[in-house]
Amino acid sequence: MQLTRAADYAVRVMIHLASLPPAARLSRASLATAAEVPTQFLSKVLQVLVRSRLVIAYRGTRGGFGLAVPPEQISVLTVVEAVEGPIQLNVCLTNGLGCGRQGWCPAHIVWQDAQAALTQVLKNASIAKLASQTVAPRQEKVVYPWN
Amino acid sequence: MQLTRAADYAVRVMIHLASLPPAARLSRASLATAAEVPTQFLSKVLQVLVRSRLVIAYRGTRGGFGLAVPPEQISVLTVVEAVEGPIQLNVCLTNGLGCGRQGWCPAHIVWQDAQAALTQVLKNASIAKLASQTVAPRQEKVVYPWN
Repeated sequence: MQLTRAADYAVRVMIHLASLPPAARLSRASLATAAEVPTQFLSKVLQVLVRSRLVIAYRGTRGGFGLAVPPEQISVLTVVEAVEGPIQLNVCLTNGLGCGRQGWCPAHIVWQDAQAALTQVLKNASIAKLASQTVAPRQEKVVYPWN
Repeated sequence: MQLTRAADYAVRVMIHLASLPPAARLSRASLATAAEVPTQFLSKVLQVLVRSRLVIAYRGTRGGFGLAVPPEQISVLTVVEAVEGPIQLNVCLTNGLGCGRQGWCPAHIVWQDAQAALTQVLKNASIAKLASQTVAPRQEKVVYPWN
């Protein structure tokens, strides 16, 4: 019962992008350094974030990666679920997958409650708020579309 | 981020054993039916529960499996951790494994809080209480040591 590396990295990337000035874009290499992700792995994570419309990939000399959505509207839960799919702490909580024991199994409600408690914390954690708490040193070259 | 099948089955087994009268023992086959676990998989789960001193395996004609600890003293968290090891929602929360980002990474506290919320629910869920809520039909042959 552990978060995937991809989801962890995706959250790091989103927080880092959110900590930049609005409209700023960052190269894949800078993001890899900032989020401490192997470049190849980062490419896969960025693909998922772009496909989920959380990140935009800009091409060309002023290209790079930037947020597609204001970070105030993005929670850690959104990012985790973009990578891992809906959180389902146990298979019996999978939507559409009926469990024959569900009607009477006393453990079912425990898994439900545990999942609700977990997702509530992740839902309340705004990417914008987390970005404002970042105190890591900054060294990367940020690109703006108007440069 | 999902519970292993083994942990899910272990919780089912413990609840079922706790729902029996004190000192009762149940055969592997009856447990397999009650917990809806393939017998071979159940053997592995029972091995772990015996090794963790949550279950006792009794040999002989009056043999079977019974709880080693009063169910009031066992939580769902205890059972899950007996099977999966300590819950660590993210690798950065692993005891003893330092994370270079930990001092400033704003996501770290989110993973900590999410893990605390999740484990609190599992810790509060007593196996005895859950067993008292079981309303499944009973068909198995229960063995007592004095029979």
